[in-house]
Amino acid sequence: MTDHLQLHDDRLFPAESATRQIARELYASVADLPVISPHGHTDPSWFADNAPFPDPTELLIIPDHYVFRMLYSQGVSLESLGIGTTPRERSPQESRRIWTLFAKHYHLFRGTPSRMWLDYVFEKVFGLQVVLTASTAGQYYDHIDDCLKSEEFRPRALFERFNIELLATTESPLDPLASHDAIQESGWSGRVISAYRPDPVVDPEFDGFTANVGQLGELSGENTATWSGYLRALANRRAYFSKRGATSTDHGHATAQTADLSTSECQALLDKALKQQMTAQEAELFRAQILTEMAAMSLDDGLVMQLHPGSFRNHNRSVFEQFGRDKGADIPVRTEYVRALKPLLDKFGNRADFTLILFTLDESTYSRELAPLAGHYPCLRLGPAWWFHDSPEGMRRFRELTTETAGLYNTVGFNDDTRAFTSIPARHDVARRMDAAFLARLVVEHRIQEAEAHELIRSLTYDLVKSAYKL
Amino acid sequence: MTDHLQLHDDRLFPAESATRQIARELYASVADLPVISPHGHTDPSWFADNAPFPDPTELLIIPDHYVFRMLYSQGVSLESLGIGTTPRERSPQESRRIWTLFAKHYHLFRGTPSRMWLDYVFEKVFGLQVVLTASTAGQYYDHIDDCLKSEEFRPRALFERFNIELLATTESPLDPLASHDAIQESGWSGRVISAYRPDPVVDPEFDGFTANVGQLGELSGENTATWSGYLRALANRRAYFSKRGATSTDHGHATAQTADLSTSECQALLDKALKQQMTAQEAELFRAQILTEMAAMSLDDGLVMQLHPGSFRNHNRSVFEQFGRDKGADIPVRTEYVRALKPLLDKFGNRADFTLILFTLDESTYSRELAPLAGHYPCLRLGPAWWFHDSPEGMRRFRELTTETAGLYNTVGFNDDTRAFTSIPARHDVARRMDAAFLARLVVEHRIQEAEAHELIRSLTYDLVKSAYKL
Amino acid sequence: MTDHLQLHDDRLFPAESATRQIARELYASVADLPVISPHGHTDPSWFADNAPFPDPTELLIIPDHYVFRMLYSQGVSLESLGIGTTPRERSPQESRRIWTLFAKHYHLFRGTPSRMWLDYVFEKVFGLQVVLTASTAGQYYDHIDDCLKSEEFRPRALFERFNIELLATTESPLDPLASHDAIQESGWSGRVISAYRPDPVVDPEFDGFTANVGQLGELSGENTATWSGYLRALANRRAYFSKRGATSTDHGHATAQTADLSTSECQALLDKALKQQMTAQEAELFRAQILTEMAAMSLDDGLVMQLHPGSFRNHNRSVFEQFGRDKGADIPVRTEYVRALKPLLDKFGNRADFTLILFTLDESTYSRELAPLAGHYPCLRLGPAWWFHDSPEGMRRFRELTTETAGLYNTVGFNDDTRAFTSIPARHDVARRMDAAFLARLVVEHRIQEAEAHELIRSLTYDLVKSAYKL
Repeated sequence: MTDHLQLHDDRLFPAESATRQIARELYASVADLPVISPHGHTDPSWFADNAPFPDPTELLIIPDHYVFRMLYSQGVSLESLGIGTTPRERSPQESRRIWTLFAKHYHLFRGTPSRMWLDYVFEKVFGLQVVLTASTAGQYYDHIDDCLKSEEFRPRALFERFNIELLATTESPLDPLASHDAIQESGWSGRVISAYRPDPVVDPEFDGFTANVGQLGELSGENTATWSGYLRALANRRAYFSKRGATSTDHGHATAQTADLSTSECQALLDKALKQQMTAQEAELFRAQILTEMAAMSLDDGLVMQLHPGSFRNHNRSVFEQFGRDKGADIPVRTEYVRALKPLLDKFGNRADFTLILFTLDESTYSRELAPLAGHYPCLRLGPAWWFHDSPEGMRRFRELTTETAGLYNTVGFNDDTRAFTSIPARHDVARRMDAAFLARLVVEHRIQEAEAHELIRSLTYDLVKSAYKL
Repeated sequence: MTDHLQLHDDRLFPAESATRQIARELYASVADLPVISPHGHTDPSWFADNAPFPDPTELLIIPDHYVFRMLYSQGVSLESLGIGTTPRERSPQESRRIWTLFAKHYHLFRGTPSRMWLDYVFEKVFGLQVVLTASTAGQYYDHIDDCLKSEEFRPRALFERFNIELLATTESPLDPLASHDAIQESGWSGRVISAYRPDPVVDPEFDGFTANVGQLGELSGENTATWSGYLRALANRRAYFSKRGATSTDHGHATAQTADLSTSECQALLDKALKQQMTAQEAELFRAQILTEMAAMSLDDGLVMQLHPGSFRNHNRSVFEQFGRDKGADIPVRTEYVRALKPLLDKFGNRADFTLILFTLDESTYSRELAPLAGHYPCLRLGPAWWFHDSPEGMRRFRELTTETAGLYNTVGFNDDTRAFTSIPARHDVARRMDAAFLARLVVEHRIQEAEAHELIRSLTYDLVKSAYKL
Repeated sequence: MTDHLQLHDDRLFPAESATRQIARELYASVADLPVISPHGHTDPSWFADNAPFPDPTELLIIPDHYVFRMLYSQGVSLESLGIGTTPRERSPQESRRIWTLFAKHYHLFRGTPSRMWLDYVFEKVFGLQVVLTASTAGQYYDHIDDCLKSEEFRPRALFERFNIELLATTESPLDPLASHDAIQESGWSGRVISAYRPDPVVDPEFDGFTANVGQLGELSGENTATWSGYLRALANRRAYFSKRGATSTDHGHATAQTADLSTSECQALLDKALKQQMTAQEAELFRAQILTEMAAMSLDDGLVMQLHPGSFRNHNRSVFEQFGRDKGADIPVRTEYVRALKPLLDKFGNRADFTLILFTLDESTYSRELAPLAGHYPCLRLGPAWWFHDSPEGMRRFRELTTETAGLYNTVGFNDDTRAFTSIPARHDVARRMDAAFLARLVVEHRIQEAEAHELIRSLTYDLVKSAYKL
């Protein structure tokens, strides 16, 4: 049996009819606004090369840890899903087998955002009209595969079709940004910029840290063995990114800890870091100091700072050893902001010309720490519901738990934060719908006027992200 | 004045009419499915002996710390409620006086699940038709007392009337399971199995630990003074339980800490434990190691492992000294899972042939830790909302906070976890209604199809518990 | 353009029509009940002197850190808002300029409780009929300023118009309560009492602690250098407050830590405290001991004890240095109750003649710690949603997260906790509406009867606060 696939126009809107009607109108007013994606993990070479995506499995399963972690959690091996292989290592038959295996387990996603994103991609991007099941898997594979061979499904064509006004990728300071240069030189009108993510050269526990810092020195022409040279090198690469259009930095630290140490303490820490003779506590202190230094540089060069703390990366030891990073085994941990950020805030917290956007994986901090902080400090803004919480219920909780204390104007619109390119319109669509639903409730409970809700939905969709990220 | 008692057919369903209609249909499809109770604390001797329950007070008040803690919190003394007395020590007049005292305070339960469970028991189990108040207390007492004297209210008759397909009790490894044997030998068709709860022989801080371990040695014929003998003894008793139908173990540790120590470290800890010369930290480490050992044994004997951490037991010192354990003074504390479980998960986390069911009293871990863990590790499943959270709002939060990341198939249906036998159908009824309400919202917001919701409600009610607990 | 300002009669009620209808009826039954405000920070001299409030800016902006922190978070300087100035230091033009600046940013409050409170004050207290915007700012200023010059807007007249049955202020033990005496002697019928807030004389880290304790000795005629004399001095001032009508004490500690030390330990701590030679840990222990001593005194003198822990005060260093305390920079931190309160509860927890009302800024403790504690210990009650959580969503979460475990009778009605006098009726109105909305949902989901909801709404509005605070 093949069921019809048709996303309902009212999806995600509250059932109560007055609320739904208002949600519909609010959503309609922003449904066609361009997508601004200021933070994500797509590959800029897609847009530089504009080569076709290899096949459905490579496009939709292999890079999407949201997808394969769920199958893995139910006993499907990563090997059987082709994780760790490249398209070249897989025969078309193998890719098709993996797709069918995925289809067979598609019911596992019921009630999850992955299901909503995937159905959107299937119907709205690829025009499929039946539900994905084991029996339609072959039809799906063929159809998507055919699409991918056509011009309209090349990365740039999709970028345009998705109505993307701007897309930010994320790169290491060591990255020459060749793809970004190539995009710019190509004359294509699509705006793809980078964000400066210095983890490999500022986290002493990052694989290859010492070599990375050496390379940073070479790239920048600075002596990165001295603290001042090291800072100049970091600033030099920020300028390199900024010149190519980047407007932000991004920091994926384990915690939100910041510090304000003396230069001699910093030099001593750097010495230990480069010799890889650091305790875990010293490495934490090093990273803490880096955040404060990055804030100082932001005041100089105007880059907006993003902090994404609280993920225990690569929690599954054997999966990490066999398959590497980003395999669905990053697990959130309790995160503290109030004491952790104080050193940085004592220094720069009152500067309205500095922007630090805070994210969290620990929802207990929304109302307790993040909203009160953002509702006071001029430099702080709240990033949207992140990662596991980038979902209908997660977005609802974010709004309900932060709005009353931080207001809506201390938030920065939506981030899709994805490496799954075709899911970008799906994710922004969910965010617009959930914001419409939230505002509709405020209207129908007479907490704001309907005209205000119309102003707000546009701000949440478009204006706030542009101003917060200086786009 | 006596108000009519009549549970509404739509209780717990959302008010919005489309949602309510779908919830009704979903609920109707599972309302008559048999009850599977894989985890609880009823007394197997009830079913072995099949003796009448003594009186209303003994049945419904004395053993139910949910009930008397609320009265106690409002200044009713435990003595006046007969806590700590046996039916033989109480005259019928005294039991009736206690019942009336309870009735006089029945309004305290407004808005609590106890109120819903009790009203269900009154109406559906005992056929009462007026609301319990001080003035109907006598009528209640007489009616229930009469019922209890009849054959239809003997434990086995109720078990059958409650449509219980399977009921698991919880026993210590030192328990000979005589009642379970008696039930089996009696030829009665009711299926009552045990679960292996080793706290008395694996927690060095448990009352009588050293003597308990000695007894364990005798029962198993092993030398429990050596680590290897101690482990063999624990495994031996697991086999004893398993042979009598048990399919699971249960662990009520203070934290979720696990460990992976060398044999010599384990022997040293055991030596100290048996001499009762342990620090609190060493006792914690001992218990942590035990969890990893239990996981190893589960891989051998197939018993499903349950972890119930995070309760500060017997928080009220003087109540504990005067009245003992389980007197409503167990208070949840903050609980950490991500770092705590890593030693065990590093060892066995990727084994799909091992099942570890996690419970929590700390709802802040649902979306932050438990759902991400269960949405990745093949061995992990999420137990239902537990204890204080086994309530309409608690169940709703459980679904809203875990589904999007862990999905529904990494959960295991409902546990009633009760020692209040007559409340079992009431509790399962609440769970079925709340799942119906949750799924109805997903349908009406067009997040899943109605046909899917019908499949899911059956899975959540019946299929998942059978497969997760290997029943 | 000037929009009409008109608070909707159904504001804050759920949209679903059956629920809304019940909420309306419940609310209507308590809308006109007198306001009891057992905990707040208004200035008793207002009612003693009954002088006109100086101007709109001084009344509504300068003292309200809810208001100016939001503007500050969006880059409006505190200087430009007149923070730190007195009416005498500001020209009328300056006050008007500040008001206009505030009006220009009024959209920032969309979705916040401040917006609801302010609109209520504008419409219901001052009779304004257009929405506040930059263009109506002048009209607003003139109108409110005119009102303030009239007799009907003097503090006592407003007190009466607000239908306040009782208002508690908060004072230090060093305060002579001259305003309270003046009110009593004036023959005015308004009941304004104090609450005993000993932070300045019991927190070794409070500014001027040693001098404060010296002054305490003088006021009480006790030798506060000895532990016993110090305790007698504290008790002496409690009696002074009690004699003037106070029925409660209030404790604003950083944590909920309590202790039960020997007298010699206490004396040693006091010695260090008075010499200001304490570590942070010793200061914490001192405060912990004080809480237990205060509980002991409550058993003697019957004062109800309130604990408000978990605020990191004056988090913004430079704002504190320039502008002082209470400038919107107090940020909640994670708070632990279960282990922290045990020493005190071990001693007095089972005394039904003692009342300790617990508040929190850490909502993760509602269901995990506070409701289980209050649902067991006879001395404990739960204060209402506090500070940042004194908002529609915050109140809803408080009820949803505490009711099932603690019941409704272990709560104590509403506290407005405000220094913004004119917002008092607005805040109580929000609380009554949110309780009506919560109870209406219970009714419509058939969890309680409608008649019960009518009893409950009155208890939550009026009865419980009177009994809990012994008013």
